[in-house]
Amino acid sequence: MPPLPEAAAARLSALGNQMRTLSDTFVGYPCSQDFSYPEIIPLLGYAINNVGDPFGESIYRENTFALEREVVAFFQQHLRAPAEQTWGYMTSGGTEGNLYGLYLAREIHPDGIIYYSEHTHYSAAKLVRVLGARSIMIRGQDNGEIDYEDLRETIRIHRDAPPIILANIGTTMHGAVDNLTTIRAMLKDMAISRSYIHADAALSGMLLPWVDDPQPFGFDAGVDSIAVSGHKFIGSPMPCGVVLAGRRHVDRVARSVEYVGCMDTTIAGSRNAVTPVILWSAIQRWGADGFRERMGRCLEMADYAIAAFARHGIKAWRHPNSITVVFPRPRDSVIRNWQIAPSGDIAHIITMPHVTRTMIDRVVAETAGLTQQQP
Amino acid sequence: MPPLPEAAAARLSALGNQMRTLSDTFVGYPCSQDFSYPEIIPLLGYAINNVGDPFGESIYRENTFALEREVVAFFQQHLRAPAEQTWGYMTSGGTEGNLYGLYLAREIHPDGIIYYSEHTHYSAAKLVRVLGARSIMIRGQDNGEIDYEDLRETIRIHRDAPPIILANIGTTMHGAVDNLTTIRAMLKDMAISRSYIHADAALSGMLLPWVDDPQPFGFDAGVDSIAVSGHKFIGSPMPCGVVLAGRRHVDRVARSVEYVGCMDTTIAGSRNAVTPVILWSAIQRWGADGFRERMGRCLEMADYAIAAFARHGIKAWRHPNSITVVFPRPRDSVIRNWQIAPSGDIAHIITMPHVTRTMIDRVVAETAGLTQQQP
Repeated sequence: MPPLPEAAAARLSALGNQMRTLSDTFVGYPCSQDFSYPEIIPLLGYAINNVGDPFGESIYRENTFALEREVVAFFQQHLRAPAEQTWGYMTSGGTEGNLYGLYLAREIHPDGIIYYSEHTHYSAAKLVRVLGARSIMIRGQDNGEIDYEDLRETIRIHRDAPPIILANIGTTMHGAVDNLTTIRAMLKDMAISRSYIHADAALSGMLLPWVDDPQPFGFDAGVDSIAVSGHKFIGSPMPCGVVLAGRRHVDRVARSVEYVGCMDTTIAGSRNAVTPVILWSAIQRWGADGFRERMGRCLEMADYAIAAFARHGIKAWRHPNSITVVFPRPRDSVIRNWQIAPSGDIAHIITMPHVTRTMIDRVVAETAGLTQQQP
Repeated sequence: MPPLPEAAAARLSALGNQMRTLSDTFVGYPCSQDFSYPEIIPLLGYAINNVGDPFGESIYRENTFALEREVVAFFQQHLRAPAEQTWGYMTSGGTEGNLYGLYLAREIHPDGIIYYSEHTHYSAAKLVRVLGARSIMIRGQDNGEIDYEDLRETIRIHRDAPPIILANIGTTMHGAVDNLTTIRAMLKDMAISRSYIHADAALSGMLLPWVDDPQPFGFDAGVDSIAVSGHKFIGSPMPCGVVLAGRRHVDRVARSVEYVGCMDTTIAGSRNAVTPVILWSAIQRWGADGFRERMGRCLEMADYAIAAFARHGIKAWRHPNSITVVFPRPRDSVIRNWQIAPSGDIAHIITMPHVTRTMIDRVVAETAGLTQQQP
């Protein structure tokens, strides 16, 4: 391969420096940044590719299926998914996972209506549109949870159509968890026999397994499929995720694809074979105990942030078991300086493992107008 | 971060060795393996993420949008896409690109019918199903091109529905290029005023720009959108791709998503920010002249393979400007040993830049039954 021209190398070097600088102000997004995976470097010399079903046998043998299967097994265990009744694969991120879950739901209930709250991630509207599915957006509560009464009334009006619930296990802005017990009771109460629950658990799907008293969130709480990000709590230099679904749902799609001659159970064909190594390594390094301890530190830091805001008379809060600290929208310079995603009159910082007290102190001081720092 | 346990490090080391061994027999898939991108390593320590539209301004500033835009510009130039009339982004691979093109087409023509030949990549049936679109599979010719008469007759029967053509610019098995001039003349001949052509140019989209006399393949040949892989001819340790589409088509989708409060023009939300650096580096290293020379060597190697097969009385062939060498399906041991994807009674080797004469000689000898080698 020809060498990288000097000017190009200089640009990449500058880009690296820019990322290092920016990493000091990375408090607004739910992505961990306390990682280092030198063990992946030797694999970057090969055209590795996890094309197709990780539980199949691929002719394309330059793959990391074996590690991917172990990652799926770890997620099955901690999302309380019975291994023999569920199946999963590693996605390019949360969007592919949510598309997969909703795709299965739409295939099972072609006449179904997808319900999701207004606090659902902005990609939901796009996915519903890609699928060409019927959908109704439900009012959200101020705390970020879905408005259960609005959900109940809306489903009641459309009792002829199977409800497909896109539940949030950690909303984007509030870190709120839709109550799966309430939702299932509601469906039972209306004698609805055909339904589907997909959980968007991008962030909280890897938080709730590590707390003592989690809200209902996994397969034991009745979800049919669940999508979790890998680059959020665990941390990865590139987006990735895991989607799990009931095996009986996946078989339905897989069967019909067999008809055209192959078992093509994933949305993407060619799939990243490096990210399974990253998540596998992280699991090996941390283990469940390490993740639990790590989550404890994140919760402590979230409480530290709330107290720091309070000392300046700024009301900040978080949901139980959430590390998303919601506070009133600060002025634009704070948003820009600290890569904070606002929504209407609120904003949040998320105390991912790399977020320090010093970073929080600086954000709070700037928000309180004590400094005009330009990091 | 806790250290990688010794047993885990040993497994990864074994995996690396396994990949090195397998790379000696990697002749069946269209992925280059002659790359090395050490320049990406410093970026692997950050939670970089190209979330959203690369031409927008993101609050998430740990991104590589600037390089992604230059990659898109390079593809625009060589796929003959006028920069001011087209738009593009980097995908997780060919499937996302094809989904994107067909999604735009279905949005523009909700009553349209998607036509694709039986030689189209197996993912087409899945994508059509995800989109919930009407589709008809068209007969293929033995050489891999679509059967133009069957296409014409089928469209004629459904003249009330706008045709959405999924054209192959390089079929998976034969490397065949559907004739865009013929297809467009057919539509004109039938006085069809509403139509859409999406080109799946996964491999050949980065081959045809480098030959002297390419088949029609780009926007100058009338495509509305085109998907090309980045990990195929250019080469990358993880799948990636570029999709380009007419700006007027994208605006339609973007507008409607603005309604829910954001410009969300890509299918995936969070997107890999490392792969843009990889393609950008490769472009800097090779340049158009380098790619042209590289393609010349691949074509020579394809002809070498055809001659080598011929010396053993085995009929092998390739399409003009294709490096996919088609030959009769060999016995299973050859398929397994050389990671060769068969289809019915044919198979292929693809003379990607890393494929050597020695590798070809060995495949040919094994196919001819001269050896029983187990690599």
